[in-house]
Amino acid sequence: MRIALVGGTGEIGEALALRLGRDTELSLAIGSRDEVKAKESAETYRDELHRRGIDRSIASGTNAIVADDADVVVLAVPPYYVTESIGSIESVLDPETVLVSPAVGMADSPDGLRYDPPSSGSVAELAAETAPEDVPVVAAFTNVPAERVADLDEPVDMDTPVVGDSSAAKRIVVEIVSEIDGLRPVDAGSLSNAPELEALTPLLINIARQNGDLADLGVKFV
Amino acid sequence: MRIALVGGTGEIGEALALRLGRDTELSLAIGSRDEVKAKESAETYRDELHRRGIDRSIASGTNAIVADDADVVVLAVPPYYVTESIGSIESVLDPETVLVSPAVGMADSPDGLRYDPPSSGSVAELAAETAPEDVPVVAAFTNVPAERVADLDEPVDMDTPVVGDSSAAKRIVVEIVSEIDGLRPVDAGSLSNAPELEALTPLLINIARQNGDLADLGVKFV
Repeated sequence: MRIALVGGTGEIGEALALRLGRDTELSLAIGSRDEVKAKESAETYRDELHRRGIDRSIASGTNAIVADDADVVVLAVPPYYVTESIGSIESVLDPETVLVSPAVGMADSPDGLRYDPPSSGSVAELAAETAPEDVPVVAAFTNVPAERVADLDEPVDMDTPVVGDSSAAKRIVVEIVSEIDGLRPVDAGSLSNAPELEALTPLLINIARQNGDLADLGVKFV
Repeated sequence: MRIALVGGTGEIGEALALRLGRDTELSLAIGSRDEVKAKESAETYRDELHRRGIDRSIASGTNAIVADDADVVVLAVPPYYVTESIGSIESVLDPETVLVSPAVGMADSPDGLRYDPPSSGSVAELAAETAPEDVPVVAAFTNVPAERVADLDEPVDMDTPVVGDSSAAKRIVVEIVSEIDGLRPVDAGSLSNAPELEALTPLLINIARQNGDLADLGVKFV
């Protein structure tokens, strides 16, 4: 199974590369609009894993290059780059590729962070509308605190809901998530349930802002 | 401190009456549009507590009667009764009364339960718009699985976010919540953050629908 992290130079890309790199045997590739940046990040992640006694290769390239080879493509980009990123890879996507959407639209205001979805209803639904019709989209990792999860010294014990309209695609993502130590995938139904999933992120950030001792929160369903 | 559960004959009213009745010394009153029903529920809750060795009084009356005496009024009604319920008690509310909103607007669809807030943005904001301007509104208990929490044999270990614009009112609610064993209040900021809080409930229900072993979920921020 080959995973491409499109926009994998950012925080959620780093978190997923390091955790997947440490906890799984999956083949990993870091993509970026800028292949030099992609290469630098891939080397940084390799070095970080090497320091922990894990020697493994991490490929890199432009987003289109890494997506071309991948079974699963994670859109590890900010929400406002989702359509552009899909545009840059759509020619290499096929119905066997699973697109994973971890991004969340948010807008700040004087008294709190708001869930601010695109008109499609959610970033995941926007990705589904933008991608070729037969390419399945699954939302996952939306509520994973990237900076904290990128720190491999920090044990995680949290859940991430997973939604999507293709059961087969969802099963693949559930399996990948469950290979990460301490991260539990939780099926939350169809892609149209993505807004309630994505809205968790501003809630977690608002809680962190109010409580100095509750930074970088994850969630557990109990 | 006197707590009135307006609409306290329903599931969330039962859950709060039993937990507050067991775990706190707070004075409790059950309200309903129908004072006979209120009395019946209060007796049922008293009996249930008595069976567990807890003898305490629980008052009852019409919603206006119980709200008149209360420091904290919980709007334990379905979302579509919030404005009507406030209308029936507003003449007895004053700036020292804290209104607590636990209701969530949801709409079912063939492929999942949706967060379906009123045009105010959330039920809590609707309550604030409907109530006299100087009466503070706090959203809390929105994501508490009522049926499960009403079963006193079931230990709970979960969080409930609390939002509101009055720090003093929020402090009172935080204190009440924290007296319930296993329930942790978590400040999530201003009342305008209520939509993200309320949207948690359909997410929890969608997860339960997908996973037979995950019914009546609560949430923990970790």
